[in-house]
Amino acid sequence: MDYAPVKGCMVIRPYGYAIWENIQAELDPKFKATGHRNAYFPLFIPESFLRREAEHFEGFTPQAAWVTRGGGEELAEPLAVRPTSEAIIGSMYSKWIQSYRDLPVLINQWCNVVRWEKATRPFLRTSEFLWQEGHTCHRTEEEAEAETLTILEIYREFAEDFLAIPVIPGLKTESERFAGALRTYTIEALMSDGKALQAGTCHNLGQHFAKVFDITFLDSDGQLKHVWQSSWGVSTRLIGALVMVHGDDRGLVLPPRVAPVQVVIVPIPSEKEAESIAAAVASARAALAGPDGRGVRVEVDDRPEYTPGWKFNEWEMRGVPLRLEIGPRDVKAGQVVAVRRDTGEKLRLPAQTDALSSSVTDLLEEIQRTLFEKARAFREEHTSEASSVDEVQEVMETKRGFVRAPWCGSAECEAAVKERTGATIRCLPIAKDSSGRLSGEDAGSLVGEVDCVCCRQKARYLAYFARAY
Amino acid sequence: MDYAPVKGCMVIRPYGYAIWENIQAELDPKFKATGHRNAYFPLFIPESFLRREAEHFEGFTPQAAWVTRGGGEELAEPLAVRPTSEAIIGSMYSKWIQSYRDLPVLINQWCNVVRWEKATRPFLRTSEFLWQEGHTCHRTEEEAEAETLTILEIYREFAEDFLAIPVIPGLKTESERFAGALRTYTIEALMSDGKALQAGTCHNLGQHFAKVFDITFLDSDGQLKHVWQSSWGVSTRLIGALVMVHGDDRGLVLPPRVAPVQVVIVPIPSEKEAESIAAAVASARAALAGPDGRGVRVEVDDRPEYTPGWKFNEWEMRGVPLRLEIGPRDVKAGQVVAVRRDTGEKLRLPAQTDALSSSVTDLLEEIQRTLFEKARAFREEHTSEASSVDEVQEVMETKRGFVRAPWCGSAECEAAVKERTGATIRCLPIAKDSSGRLSGEDAGSLVGEVDCVCCRQKARYLAYFARAY
Repeated sequence: MDYAPVKGCMVIRPYGYAIWENIQAELDPKFKATGHRNAYFPLFIPESFLRREAEHFEGFTPQAAWVTRGGGEELAEPLAVRPTSEAIIGSMYSKWIQSYRDLPVLINQWCNVVRWEKATRPFLRTSEFLWQEGHTCHRTEEEAEAETLTILEIYREFAEDFLAIPVIPGLKTESERFAGALRTYTIEALMSDGKALQAGTCHNLGQHFAKVFDITFLDSDGQLKHVWQSSWGVSTRLIGALVMVHGDDRGLVLPPRVAPVQVVIVPIPSEKEAESIAAAVASARAALAGPDGRGVRVEVDDRPEYTPGWKFNEWEMRGVPLRLEIGPRDVKAGQVVAVRRDTGEKLRLPAQTDALSSSVTDLLEEIQRTLFEKARAFREEHTSEASSVDEVQEVMETKRGFVRAPWCGSAECEAAVKERTGATIRCLPIAKDSSGRLSGEDAGSLVGEVDCVCCRQKARYLAYFARAY
Repeated sequence: MDYAPVKGCMVIRPYGYAIWENIQAELDPKFKATGHRNAYFPLFIPESFLRREAEHFEGFTPQAAWVTRGGGEELAEPLAVRPTSEAIIGSMYSKWIQSYRDLPVLINQWCNVVRWEKATRPFLRTSEFLWQEGHTCHRTEEEAEAETLTILEIYREFAEDFLAIPVIPGLKTESERFAGALRTYTIEALMSDGKALQAGTCHNLGQHFAKVFDITFLDSDGQLKHVWQSSWGVSTRLIGALVMVHGDDRGLVLPPRVAPVQVVIVPIPSEKEAESIAAAVASARAALAGPDGRGVRVEVDDRPEYTPGWKFNEWEMRGVPLRLEIGPRDVKAGQVVAVRRDTGEKLRLPAQTDALSSSVTDLLEEIQRTLFEKARAFREEHTSEASSVDEVQEVMETKRGFVRAPWCGSAECEAAVKERTGATIRCLPIAKDSSGRLSGEDAGSLVGEVDCVCCRQKARYLAYFARAY
């Protein structure tokens, strides 16, 4: 990325944007496979629309950017640049939905949103960012809840399997709930500095917006009813998570599945063997890319103006999972030198194309697994238990990370812990039910009688606390 | 689409958005195959940046939407919501480019843009629209010109082969040139009402923006030089072109390659044969979709609450190229009834899966070809010659379409023709050179001595005139 000349905004340069394209290419088919379709709603939201849902308005207005002039004239009504699209989409759903036969409505949009931020950080918090926002309508409360948790599970699986980032799925407390929602679910990830990051959220909106925007349907029983809604999103913030979870002192470390370049081949120059090296490099590239170019994402760096050492540094900084080196000795030995970005391990692979292709594929899978396991181990090591605020504070001042602690459920205790330790409740963890689906029913449920970490009254939940981005 | 509650804006509903997704899926790989990569630049452009290039500022300011408040405060400097991104991208290129080794820079972005419009029309002219904008930097003028024409040829081929819309590639006159460009190329299409539509543009920006934004590089000869730039774009306006070129009184007619649904299967209900019909429908669907679902885009409409006739109408309105009907008689006869959207022709196809699959694939290709040929024939019938303004006027008041007429090259004559007839010069046509690439060198070149359609002085060009959207 680079800093833009506009305060709080950034430019996503091609290599970074390719990560976002890979995220889209992975998530979009998952949304479509679960019946969702993409659409596009306007960037601008009239102030009066935002105002209709009071909590929503108050939640988003302080961060809004307002268009007040257009086409050379002052506008009669200021337009907010969308901070999120519940209001504008709700107004359209009200027109589109008439009958229970029109339900469910399962729509997603990939777009930019703007939330004016005082303190910004690349990828994590910028005034403009890219995201997807799903907005759905259902006939019953159960269907809306099931949808919310279906998407949460898609996010969890995607974060863990594709980004190699272990996450804790859970329920947000009221203080961190989306403005206007009934319940907000989250996936919470732990960064390598011990701070937590909300990596995706799913909101069960209940009927709040449906009532405000008058989204009704005639049910099969002849009754006019309000729909039940959900909304959910992940953003370019995920790129920030990738940087902070896997990166090291030498730069990015990208999990192979999301890496724009999975393998870089660096020829080691040799005047005498120039031709045979070029041939070996071309053969390795072709073997990896596959006949239709749909195999491994491979690049050859044969720029003559840079030394191999310079190139090694550059591709390490860019986080390419695997580097192959081919020099005169390798050509003679019928081998290729492979260097893993995650461990620095150096291996010798057979140059024969089938063998090379399968060993590289295996190695990439191995790197993907290793990165996930490493991040999970880090999270386990940085997850503590606490039974008093002093203990929470102690953890926050030393190794940080997550603290599991019992909580009575009161906003006062939550605020008191935050005041003392800087840690907020990231979520009340949820687990899969007997049918293997995530269930919000027993979010943060406690076994046994314990006292709240703060007020010493009877605790109702086991909550995850952390300092957070 | 649907009208949004925001003046001049529209909502692109899922079926319409799927057309845009197919356009993206076709164009994006073509850009990447020619070395371009995607990136993302900020939505907001500080007023001072737009002002730097005077012509650009004057061209876009009347249409700009301005953000003047953000985060609860008045902004020190108003921010334009991007009407196009030359200014903001130019400022970044100035930072990124140092040496000839950094060139060419070949970047594209898919995004939304805003141009405040007084009179709007769905897809053709809306205050916000979606597009792609390519922005490139080159070492020499020749490279920038070659890039501009490479993209123009990608657009031409895409419009003709994928959208089945014949276009005239050509050079814009000064009056229609992009604000700040050296040369603007266009592909011009003819709508079925006889009006022309600019379907895509490519600008050779010369060094204007490079000088204004100080985009320089140290060349291999040790000299500091300004880069040569191009920019180019197509937008959701292309969906409007599809509607207007191929549509008929019953609704959309979509060319198979861009159609979200290529084939719809409508079972004809029969109580006695319900099971065998369902089996035949399932078999046909599977045969068409292919084992990995990557075959024909097929949908089954087995909604019990609608009659077949109702469904026929709906899918015709949606422009699905081919409808298959399977009823009791068809099951018995081992056949499927196919109805072409473009011609209304009814055919009997074999139900046997291999035969069905190949005959449907052939039919879709045939429909694609037919639509293109029909549109081309329409354009030929609606292309006239004129040697006087009276003749241009006569055509514009009767059959409309394109008029080829000699032109002296003066802006006065161009304006006079417009004043009298409503027709503007759409382009000076260009052709492929001996190497098979589009060449702008002899744009609109005239053979023989003829007089300008307006002033009767010696004509320099043969121009295409038309009324336009």
